[in-house]
Amino acid sequence: MADDSLVVFTPSGRRGRFPVGTPLLAAARRLGVDLDSVCGGRGICTRCQIRVSEGEFAKHGIVSAPDHLTEPTDREQRQRKTGRLREGHRLSCQACVAGDLVADVPETSQVHRQIVRKRADARNIRIDPLVRPMYVEVPPPDLARPAAHLRRLKESLREAFGARVTEAEVEALRRLHPTLEASGYRATAFVRDGRRLVDIRPGYRDRVYGLAVDVGSTTLAVHLCDLLTGEVVASLGRMNPQIRFGEDLMSRVSFAMMNEDGAAEMTGAVREALDELAAEAAAAAGVDPADVLEVAIAGNPVMHHLLLGLDPAPLGFAPFALATDEGTEVAAADIGLRRGAGDAARAYVLPCIAGHVGADAAGVVLSEMPYRKREVTLIVDVGTNAELVLGNRDRLLAASSPTGPAFEGAQLSCGQRAAPGVIERVRIDPVTLEPRYRVIGDERWSDEPGFEPAPSGICGSGIVEAIAELFLAGIVHADGTIDGELAARSPRIVRTGRTYTYVIRTGEPEIAITQNDVRQIQLAKAALYAGARLLMDRMGIDALDRVTLAGAFGSQIDPKYALILGMVPDCEPGKVTSAGNAAGTGARIALLNRRLRRELEREVRRIEKVETAVEARFQEHFVDAMAIPHRSAPYEKLRAAVALPAPPAPAASGRRRRRPAGRPA
Amino acid sequence: MADDSLVVFTPSGRRGRFPVGTPLLAAARRLGVDLDSVCGGRGICTRCQIRVSEGEFAKHGIVSAPDHLTEPTDREQRQRKTGRLREGHRLSCQACVAGDLVADVPETSQVHRQIVRKRADARNIRIDPLVRPMYVEVPPPDLARPAAHLRRLKESLREAFGARVTEAEVEALRRLHPTLEASGYRATAFVRDGRRLVDIRPGYRDRVYGLAVDVGSTTLAVHLCDLLTGEVVASLGRMNPQIRFGEDLMSRVSFAMMNEDGAAEMTGAVREALDELAAEAAAAAGVDPADVLEVAIAGNPVMHHLLLGLDPAPLGFAPFALATDEGTEVAAADIGLRRGAGDAARAYVLPCIAGHVGADAAGVVLSEMPYRKREVTLIVDVGTNAELVLGNRDRLLAASSPTGPAFEGAQLSCGQRAAPGVIERVRIDPVTLEPRYRVIGDERWSDEPGFEPAPSGICGSGIVEAIAELFLAGIVHADGTIDGELAARSPRIVRTGRTYTYVIRTGEPEIAITQNDVRQIQLAKAALYAGARLLMDRMGIDALDRVTLAGAFGSQIDPKYALILGMVPDCEPGKVTSAGNAAGTGARIALLNRRLRRELEREVRRIEKVETAVEARFQEHFVDAMAIPHRSAPYEKLRAAVALPAPPAPAASGRRRRRPAGRPA
Repeated sequence: MADDSLVVFTPSGRRGRFPVGTPLLAAARRLGVDLDSVCGGRGICTRCQIRVSEGEFAKHGIVSAPDHLTEPTDREQRQRKTGRLREGHRLSCQACVAGDLVADVPETSQVHRQIVRKRADARNIRIDPLVRPMYVEVPPPDLARPAAHLRRLKESLREAFGARVTEAEVEALRRLHPTLEASGYRATAFVRDGRRLVDIRPGYRDRVYGLAVDVGSTTLAVHLCDLLTGEVVASLGRMNPQIRFGEDLMSRVSFAMMNEDGAAEMTGAVREALDELAAEAAAAAGVDPADVLEVAIAGNPVMHHLLLGLDPAPLGFAPFALATDEGTEVAAADIGLRRGAGDAARAYVLPCIAGHVGADAAGVVLSEMPYRKREVTLIVDVGTNAELVLGNRDRLLAASSPTGPAFEGAQLSCGQRAAPGVIERVRIDPVTLEPRYRVIGDERWSDEPGFEPAPSGICGSGIVEAIAELFLAGIVHADGTIDGELAARSPRIVRTGRTYTYVIRTGEPEIAITQNDVRQIQLAKAALYAGARLLMDRMGIDALDRVTLAGAFGSQIDPKYALILGMVPDCEPGKVTSAGNAAGTGARIALLNRRLRRELEREVRRIEKVETAVEARFQEHFVDAMAIPHRSAPYEKLRAAVALPAPPAPAASGRRRRRPAGRPA
Repeated sequence: MADDSLVVFTPSGRRGRFPVGTPLLAAARRLGVDLDSVCGGRGICTRCQIRVSEGEFAKHGIVSAPDHLTEPTDREQRQRKTGRLREGHRLSCQACVAGDLVADVPETSQVHRQIVRKRADARNIRIDPLVRPMYVEVPPPDLARPAAHLRRLKESLREAFGARVTEAEVEALRRLHPTLEASGYRATAFVRDGRRLVDIRPGYRDRVYGLAVDVGSTTLAVHLCDLLTGEVVASLGRMNPQIRFGEDLMSRVSFAMMNEDGAAEMTGAVREALDELAAEAAAAAGVDPADVLEVAIAGNPVMHHLLLGLDPAPLGFAPFALATDEGTEVAAADIGLRRGAGDAARAYVLPCIAGHVGADAAGVVLSEMPYRKREVTLIVDVGTNAELVLGNRDRLLAASSPTGPAFEGAQLSCGQRAAPGVIERVRIDPVTLEPRYRVIGDERWSDEPGFEPAPSGICGSGIVEAIAELFLAGIVHADGTIDGELAARSPRIVRTGRTYTYVIRTGEPEIAITQNDVRQIQLAKAALYAGARLLMDRMGIDALDRVTLAGAFGSQIDPKYALILGMVPDCEPGKVTSAGNAAGTGARIALLNRRLRRELEREVRRIEKVETAVEARFQEHFVDAMAIPHRSAPYEKLRAAVALPAPPAPAASGRRRRRPAGRPA
């Protein structure tokens, strides 16, 4: 024992004494150091590279030097030539302890390495894949010492990886004999959660894939990910074919209630489309769908229920009872993933938070992790209902607000779903009252040379922007009225019955904002605002540290305009940001990290559900929030941020018009 | 605390102090007393009946009396009137502690009560069902405190039963809303292994069923059991439709190897037949197949593999590698049980022991439990191969012997599978050399008045009996030769080429035992004997305490004749018994008791596998065992037991005939 050498691993700081001749990988295993290996110590995968730190380490009382490991082996020299073993590094499965040493495990050699998220403010994702490939050389069956294939495989996995496999998919059992026989008993086992054999393939393989899925009412999106690197190798989207059963959620719930097999029909439609999309994603990335062994899915409560084959009808009426609000794991094949994933693949559907705050909101929570922050964040995910989550590490609250489908462009005179060719940006000159706009899929403004598109309508974020601009230009008053007196100044403002309309585009089709359109948006934004206020009341706060806008609408809308319109309560404008497709990001995190999946389940349980429908104060807030802009502190800053040119001539500023304070007259 | 009363439960002896007013069921729960309840303490199921012992219990230092419980409640009085609450008993969910008392829990109130097995020597089965019904009243969904159905159900189950449900079948999730809604939120949940919700039904239900299945090469048998009482409510059998792909196991393995989809075709055939049989059993017992929630299956390795959809080809050749030798649990639907079982039913296939010692032998081990006994038992299950298990609580060994299909009647001149109308019993008069016989399905002997059947052949046990009787009558010599000299004395002995044949029945069809038939049986019995001897050598023993004959052949054969022929090594004749369909019994035990299922898995792992093919001594034993009878100590006793009349006239006793010693000349 006196001859044992001290081995210290950095950055973990784990340390222990080992006899000279101990492979470094074995020492790391013994100490529980996070050091990757797919080949189980056979010098094939080159994932266990470490670097010996040189010098005297007073803290550990040792002197470390590269020659305190045994000489590089032939295999290391070969891997050095192929360029896979980096300069100055050693394979810890080949190098053995020959003296005291400090071994540094670089990020790239850790199983739980991080992947960097593109958004500047997003935390990186630490990878902790549920399914891992493990290359093993299994002893062939021996008549003298008979043991089943599974038993011998399990023993090999335990020896090479310390894995304790206790269960096996029947599909994997089916492949055991042919795979082992064909490969000379050298194969890669795919082990889920360290205990379940899900697949086996001949020879050495170090790739395994997963699908992150976002099932939206309108669109389905899949992200095919390399489970070991976290890399997204293909992203595809398509329309949710359930749209033919109803545009919005409530019409689909109705369809389920009115038709005997309505729910089953919608379940079949979404499953089939998802399977096709998954197969297309695999094809696009050149990945064999059989290598896709894990799936994580986010979606609103109705989509969640329909995908799982649960009746969504109870979600249409108070008390909006979910069948389950827990994370649900099923065989991927059981939700229709047959061509797009391996036959032993498992699918995990994120937990719902409440009847109207679904697994999509849970995905957003996992993506944004408000429960880890000190600052109080309001997360808003707008669809037919707005899903709201408010809080920080001390407390989280959730509610939904009945915004109706106006933000999605529905039930508006020229409203359309966001799609190429639809107006998404609007600017109105406060002097000429003339508009300019941009359509989805074209970078140019309508007044720039070469602008050609004839837009077919205006999407939700476009309408929000248009109304905010109309307000800033003085055409729409604080109470939402379109100022008819301005009709004299601009042909854009036209009388229609007893109210006025602002025409963004003349010709065929004409695109205009009617008084009713403004009212619909007012109702929607007041509901959203009131829901958020209600949560703030519950939490006993008056201001927000951060507002995160999630979902399709949230990523399309310019946060400035959301604040000008008073969609959300006061917040520093710079702290109102879009999270993009945060539900999809949440699904991706749940796909890549099994611990964060559990963390989400714990946090979702902790969230306090607030039902807006039974709160009297919701109505009060709602009424208060109808006006534009709601009296807010950051309004002035925003007003300046919009950087308006000179104000319109005072002549036209009508009697009912409230001039924003502090603005030069 | 000083006012707490002492409550002692018998027979467990568990005791504790409880405040006056504590329901007795709650006290029992707290102490972990085995006390049944399906209704969760609502006075509905009447399963929690106890009886207060009266008098002074010095050991416990208390005086117990019936009035140390609160007065009978209305509900108890009503149950008393219906006759469900027995005289002198109380419902422990209704009666509350009012003073010190000793409460006796009768067997009928225990979850783990025993069911009595019919065979005199068999241990009774203690019930410990995997699936239990739990009646709960779930709070309706509440807008003010939203929680999903599953969450509220789980809380109710925890409160009423202390059950910690952590998982749920999607099928059960699907039923949650409609079931709870339709039943006014009073429903029975079916919980598997204390943690998985598998089904839910409206209102109070206290029945749940399971299927014990024995998949034989020739026949399929199912036993539909009440999981809570252990009662067999229906037993049905039918031919294994795989027979059209080959009579014996090896021809089915060949079929799998010679035909592209051969294995899949056989898998489909057996699954379909099993599903039909299960549905028929349910119909026969008036049970809704949806109430069948658990399945346990035994079968030889080839049947095991084919049922699970695993390729049986590797079992046809050395090294006879099983895909798995562990107990395998799958969804019952995944092995084709769709009409005959509930959609959330699980199927458990017993572990195999070795490549030729299957889940049927494991079933026999579970039925006979040699691992709990001091005496050394040899268990023999004869099919195409004989599966052998030898040992006691200290050590168990297993092997298979290549007996070939002779014992099943195959490859013999008049051999047939056991079926109605086939000869199963034969006696030969040692004086006249005339035979008499009995056929399956008829109690009369062929020489009794009114005997009519024209047998179509002779089954395996019939041939064994015939040859033993021929030997006892002096017609067959110890070396197996049919004595041609006797042709002069009886027209039954006729020359066929260079050898002789004994004709049991003349006419159409003629039924005879040829010299070749004797040779085939000699080879088979020598293989069986040699395998058993080999295991005894390994174990270092020379004599057996007990021999158990299992399987169809084992239950048909008269143990006497097995000993006379030398099929098994020496043993007290009274200790050679038939276990009937012990594999089926084992499946039934695995169905009814989850702990014994685990116990079997542990014991199976402990069994040492001996491969006869690689043991030189097997050949030696085999050659030694060809003669009839093998020189054995109990032979003399047996010889007497057969109770022969006076021996044949000495004139005919030929030169090569060895006269049994001790028999009057």
